[in-house]
Amino acid sequence: MKVVLVVCDGLGDRPTKALNGLTPLQAARAETFDRIAAAGECGIMDVIAPGQPPGSDTAHLALFGYDPYKYYPGRGAFEALGVGVDLRPGDVAFRCNLGTINEEGVVVDRRAGRISSDQARILAEALNQIEIESVDGVKAIFRHSSEHRGVLILRGKNLSRMVSDVDTHETGVKVPDPRPLDDSVEARRTAAALKEFLDKARKILRDHPVNRERVKKGLKPANVVLPRGAGTLPNIDPITKRWGIRAAAIAGGGLYKGVAKAVGFDLIEVPGANGTVNTNLKSKVEAAIKALEEYDLVFLHIKATDSVSHDKNPRKKVEVIEWISRELTPLVDKVSEEGYYLAITGDHTTPSELGEHKGDPVPIAIMGPAVRRDDVKKFDELSCARGGLCRIRGLDLMRILMNYIGRVPLFGE
Amino acid sequence: MKVVLVVCDGLGDRPTKALNGLTPLQAARAETFDRIAAAGECGIMDVIAPGQPPGSDTAHLALFGYDPYKYYPGRGAFEALGVGVDLRPGDVAFRCNLGTINEEGVVVDRRAGRISSDQARILAEALNQIEIESVDGVKAIFRHSSEHRGVLILRGKNLSRMVSDVDTHETGVKVPDPRPLDDSVEARRTAAALKEFLDKARKILRDHPVNRERVKKGLKPANVVLPRGAGTLPNIDPITKRWGIRAAAIAGGGLYKGVAKAVGFDLIEVPGANGTVNTNLKSKVEAAIKALEEYDLVFLHIKATDSVSHDKNPRKKVEVIEWISRELTPLVDKVSEEGYYLAITGDHTTPSELGEHKGDPVPIAIMGPAVRRDDVKKFDELSCARGGLCRIRGLDLMRILMNYIGRVPLFGE
Repeated sequence: MKVVLVVCDGLGDRPTKALNGLTPLQAARAETFDRIAAAGECGIMDVIAPGQPPGSDTAHLALFGYDPYKYYPGRGAFEALGVGVDLRPGDVAFRCNLGTINEEGVVVDRRAGRISSDQARILAEALNQIEIESVDGVKAIFRHSSEHRGVLILRGKNLSRMVSDVDTHETGVKVPDPRPLDDSVEARRTAAALKEFLDKARKILRDHPVNRERVKKGLKPANVVLPRGAGTLPNIDPITKRWGIRAAAIAGGGLYKGVAKAVGFDLIEVPGANGTVNTNLKSKVEAAIKALEEYDLVFLHIKATDSVSHDKNPRKKVEVIEWISRELTPLVDKVSEEGYYLAITGDHTTPSELGEHKGDPVPIAIMGPAVRRDDVKKFDELSCARGGLCRIRGLDLMRILMNYIGRVPLFGE
Repeated sequence: MKVVLVVCDGLGDRPTKALNGLTPLQAARAETFDRIAAAGECGIMDVIAPGQPPGSDTAHLALFGYDPYKYYPGRGAFEALGVGVDLRPGDVAFRCNLGTINEEGVVVDRRAGRISSDQARILAEALNQIEIESVDGVKAIFRHSSEHRGVLILRGKNLSRMVSDVDTHETGVKVPDPRPLDDSVEARRTAAALKEFLDKARKILRDHPVNRERVKKGLKPANVVLPRGAGTLPNIDPITKRWGIRAAAIAGGGLYKGVAKAVGFDLIEVPGANGTVNTNLKSKVEAAIKALEEYDLVFLHIKATDSVSHDKNPRKKVEVIEWISRELTPLVDKVSEEGYYLAITGDHTTPSELGEHKGDPVPIAIMGPAVRRDDVKKFDELSCARGGLCRIRGLDLMRILMNYIGRVPLFGE
């Protein structure tokens, strides 16, 4: 028995003026979504807790069955895993922007004039040469991810993620030094190592040919590294061990790959899966169907619904929903034929009028041979609220799915 | 964006014979209640936990977002705050009755023949003169509240609320000495100070002219103080700080004012708001409308539904519900016009056939621009159970409301 979990990022929404008071799911003609609802049991789900807006990282931890209030290890580690760094226990990872500062150290652009990936990759290679000398036994690793983004890893004994963000999150502010966030030796060591890295990075970047060339052309130089979101590997039993399953994840966005990898999923790379509305969804769906040959649990992440929500484009969200629904058809066919299970939901509500994560529950539908099929015929926030699942918590979803495929051991006798 | 929380005390009920098997809410013609349900999303709510009968104090702690299993500090402190005592961290407060004992120290009346407020106030002033000598650095403060009721505060270092009730809760029983409820020095000190206060109180009351006069007239003397419900200030972040809001409470009953004040609400005093069925509800509603100019969260408490439930008067409860519904109309008009949010619910179920708190869930409806409006058209226990909120917990309500007004920070990234 096998199960597919499809998460459409930011799928939940609110009544929307541009859609005559409907939510995008209500407004959409999404036949395959509705087919899942009609064949299955439906409900609403508080991914973290009622009213709590989830980040994408904490939301996915909960959906995979790990309480983010206990296990959230900061975002940096997920980003590092997502770009393919072989992160080890004890490593502290940071998401980094390459930015532009003026002579006073004030941030003038957090994205260095949207520097190209090609140029940023060259700078990242130079930054990866930096050696930490002031803190005993600590090594720095720097990897480019996309455009102005990169990942910094501090590796060594006795490090801590309790270090403040250096990224100012806004322009016009002087870049601060990193500070330890608690009294531990580990936090002080980490802050000191990070400071040395950042000082050396500024020198390397200032004199680097790529930046000299950019300045000559009137472009903003990438002359500062701005780390944020210090994180470590979460200290958990992997999902494969917890349930005795083989688990595969298919995602475009680095963060989602990172969370999936951190909890023990194998990553299946799909060419053209890039976490945007132009993703190669057809190939992702084909990959999911193929993965069912080998894996008990297949996680398929689709980012486009969140992207158009952040762009505050409700009509486009309707179109994206209809497109996803169409593209999912072969997967739903396959699951139906085989008598497998499939759950579809979102990781949070991103109202497309507001463009930011909110704490409203998300709709969920689960189809499969043993579910208690209810009367819900349409997959949307309001219809699902009348379904047989009633209102559940994100943290319970994985156990519910594993129960259907017979992977939850008896508690007691 | 702003929100009003209306709590009708003891609103929830059960199918009732006197109402042909309907609940009072089902039997009532309450147009404004139903208007809120029709415009909003509805559900049922376990204020503390399914099946758990809440006290009014623990219920309101939960509704304000504070887990009573963690934070309930005893009722005494809420009573003290409700009568306007400037309670300080470390103070231990007791609810007290003035009662009547016979020569053997046996309670013959827990309310001293329903002594008048005027007489009790004079006795309270005498009790407030008592000095504690046997326990180092402890001061006693006694305040009259209403009729036979008062509040005792023990102030000083190293005191504890772990002290037994002296109030016998029934007549025909000898008044016990206070006992420490744990092995701590603090509990022993508090019990000793309380015993000294009570011994001195008996002497003062026995010889007091008010009591001599009462005995002469054949009335029962108020010759004993019966403390119960030792409590301290809860050790919490105030609601204003937790969500970054301004919060005002409008209530008649002292307990509700006390809980609201303890968690950080400003109290708005309304002349004639007295926590009874004769309360000046029109002025309370006007005060709530006015408070919306200054405050982000306005809490409006209405006691009358609980009072008639305790009187086991289902028909009167129907009338009271219809009256409250009418009086709330201007507030619901205002909230609709401004595009604010309003939630209406109860703090517990008080079946009007039984006259005591029960653990059945209460109905809830939330209206406002972003709610997912469901099909429920009537505000009662059964209709709301089919609504889009499904079944929630009291502890989650405040986060749900704060999510709507944009006050819940993202968890994760």
